[in-house]
Amino acid sequence: MTTITDTAPAALRRPALIAGFTAPQGFGDATLRDRRVDAIELLGGIPDPAVLPTAELAEATARVLSRPGVPALQYSRTEGISPLREWIAEREGVAVERIVVTNGGFHGLSLAIQTVVDHGDLVAVDNPVFPLFLRGLELSAARILPIRVGAEGIDVEQLGDRLRDGARPTALYTVPDFHNPTQGTLSEDARTELVRLAEHYDFVVFADNPYRELWYGGGPESTRVLNGSQRVIHINTFTKTLGPGLRLGWAVVPAHLAPDIVALRSRQDSHSSTLVQAIVGEALTADPELFDTTLGRARALYRDRAQTLVAALEREAPGAFDTTVPDGGLFLWPRLNDETLDADRLALDASAEGVEYQRGSFFPSGPGSDADRHLRLAYGHVPQAQLEEAAARLGRALRRQGA
Amino acid sequence: MTTITDTAPAALRRPALIAGFTAPQGFGDATLRDRRVDAIELLGGIPDPAVLPTAELAEATARVLSRPGVPALQYSRTEGISPLREWIAEREGVAVERIVVTNGGFHGLSLAIQTVVDHGDLVAVDNPVFPLFLRGLELSAARILPIRVGAEGIDVEQLGDRLRDGARPTALYTVPDFHNPTQGTLSEDARTELVRLAEHYDFVVFADNPYRELWYGGGPESTRVLNGSQRVIHINTFTKTLGPGLRLGWAVVPAHLAPDIVALRSRQDSHSSTLVQAIVGEALTADPELFDTTLGRARALYRDRAQTLVAALEREAPGAFDTTVPDGGLFLWPRLNDETLDADRLALDASAEGVEYQRGSFFPSGPGSDADRHLRLAYGHVPQAQLEEAAARLGRALRRQGA
Repeated sequence: MTTITDTAPAALRRPALIAGFTAPQGFGDATLRDRRVDAIELLGGIPDPAVLPTAELAEATARVLSRPGVPALQYSRTEGISPLREWIAEREGVAVERIVVTNGGFHGLSLAIQTVVDHGDLVAVDNPVFPLFLRGLELSAARILPIRVGAEGIDVEQLGDRLRDGARPTALYTVPDFHNPTQGTLSEDARTELVRLAEHYDFVVFADNPYRELWYGGGPESTRVLNGSQRVIHINTFTKTLGPGLRLGWAVVPAHLAPDIVALRSRQDSHSSTLVQAIVGEALTADPELFDTTLGRARALYRDRAQTLVAALEREAPGAFDTTVPDGGLFLWPRLNDETLDADRLALDASAEGVEYQRGSFFPSGPGSDADRHLRLAYGHVPQAQLEEAAARLGRALRRQGA
Repeated sequence: MTTITDTAPAALRRPALIAGFTAPQGFGDATLRDRRVDAIELLGGIPDPAVLPTAELAEATARVLSRPGVPALQYSRTEGISPLREWIAEREGVAVERIVVTNGGFHGLSLAIQTVVDHGDLVAVDNPVFPLFLRGLELSAARILPIRVGAEGIDVEQLGDRLRDGARPTALYTVPDFHNPTQGTLSEDARTELVRLAEHYDFVVFADNPYRELWYGGGPESTRVLNGSQRVIHINTFTKTLGPGLRLGWAVVPAHLAPDIVALRSRQDSHSSTLVQAIVGEALTADPELFDTTLGRARALYRDRAQTLVAALEREAPGAFDTTVPDGGLFLWPRLNDETLDADRLALDASAEGVEYQRGSFFPSGPGSDADRHLRLAYGHVPQAQLEEAAARLGRALRRQGA
């Protein structure tokens, strides 16, 4: 084998697209730093394997791989295979033509960005925001317009003010249900106003909804408003419900945008794995109760874990946090009550004590947010005893600052 | 459910990227036209399900889905999971760091294009060429420099002339083994010269190699020259060997380009399905003979089918075609001997007789090729009796022109 050196040939220059990519800031590279071997990681929105329908997926695989001609191993349509698309369309209450199967929620966002946002366009985004979305926006070298996120999701009133002041975004990004990171849910009135603004000011809403099905307080808002607008790409995924490793999601797209998304996708990987689509489609249709049964188990588990972590934080660090049990999702977003505490130092002290989380300062998309006073704690995949130990470690980290 | 009309809101404009996409010409939309219900389709490079290791994939799935913690359903690294990457790296004879797992060969091309080719750059391409590659190039709005393809693949001498005349491509696209569509294989000397030119003139070779393992004449050339250069992205896939529906492939990339490809991929779908990677990795490593056993069965089947089709063409249309049994791959590329025949009319007559193929006129990337005198006949997935019937129908279509 010829030896290859690691240095790039000097004459090769990088395309503007690639040269414009920024290195991960905080959110990404924080997961790479050295940590204790016994660290408890509350980092990502990871579903617990105990509530994934593992056996049913294995059985579905055996069935689809024994069909004559094995269509699950052959090419399929860019939009997705029929049984799966039909199942999704029925659940979303839309025509099947509006469903595009993706390789997960982030892929749906990526396709939406490249299909809608031109180079250098303005995009309104949550503030605080799911930081990886901003990295996705680099595909279109977009400029951002941060919009405040309150207790009930994106502040549609502030958005309206910006638009009346002359801001002209091409698109808007928000997480409508169980917001990441702030956990609020947009009311039906706010959704209706958001869609009205999108229609009036000609922008497309990217509604990113990976946590929607994981409700355990009241149920989520209806999909009617978002799915009923020609200005919304409503992005969802099986990542949090059937497993991130499937890489399988979908977007509900306005009919007029579907051909463009398909044209883009056909220049990337052609279509999502037929095998994965066939497995999931078979599992969901062979037992029409499977998805809701799976969700029922997941909701009970995540509610218990959220309650456990909230109680443990109050026990181990009484009064330190303003915390509520969220209505769904996989995160707590506690706020530090003591304004004199150094939140960045807390994250380092917590790491030294053996607990890792995403610090709130990774999430602002602009000024004016108090996200840096928060911690994002992911509890979905962490057993209760470990959540209690994590809270104890966090308590010790707080006391290092004399709290 | 709110009714959605199909018309696009007038004010929305499409990004330049999307507006620059061309509609499928021939190659793509030909597969959509009306055809006889009993049509025999010799259209695509589709593997026969009988030689895919279906049972082994089902057994591997059961094993990976019963592992504690079910890592196959969780997030994984953008580059790909270890057992699979290591298996590929060993087979390619390169360091594992140089393997990037993709969603199939076209996805590897797509990533290579966006990572290397800047907007409006010049890209040298096969003439005739796999037409979908040109559609992929629209991701970078590239201009093309067609380079003649002869009996032994791309004409490196003509390429050298163009470069000495001042052409400065950023990249070059070719299929080095069992060229699509012309079936030639680049000699070791020509590969060496191609790599020398790439290093001297600072361009990156996209070596697209989906058919490489499907040899049945002499074996293919060694991967040493292509994998030994820092100027080659060597793209391969399990599509033709384990099944297109997996959507699983890989690229051997120069070490200096790997971070850029990973940065791009992390802004698309993050990583290929962990489940599919785990299934294939488990199947290939649990039985180290599985891949070669599978290939052995495939090579024997495809050789027999190629020979059957060549013999049937000679029997049903004596002297009509200049045809050779290729050394590998999934296509014949017969040339019409009678220069007075109308090749486009032949394709229509063949369709009326009930046989569909890709006409040669879909493949030129520029002037100077005789591709329009050829037919591309895919035989991999077609049983022998149907190949013989297809040849008979083609013979009848020829006789409609008095041949």
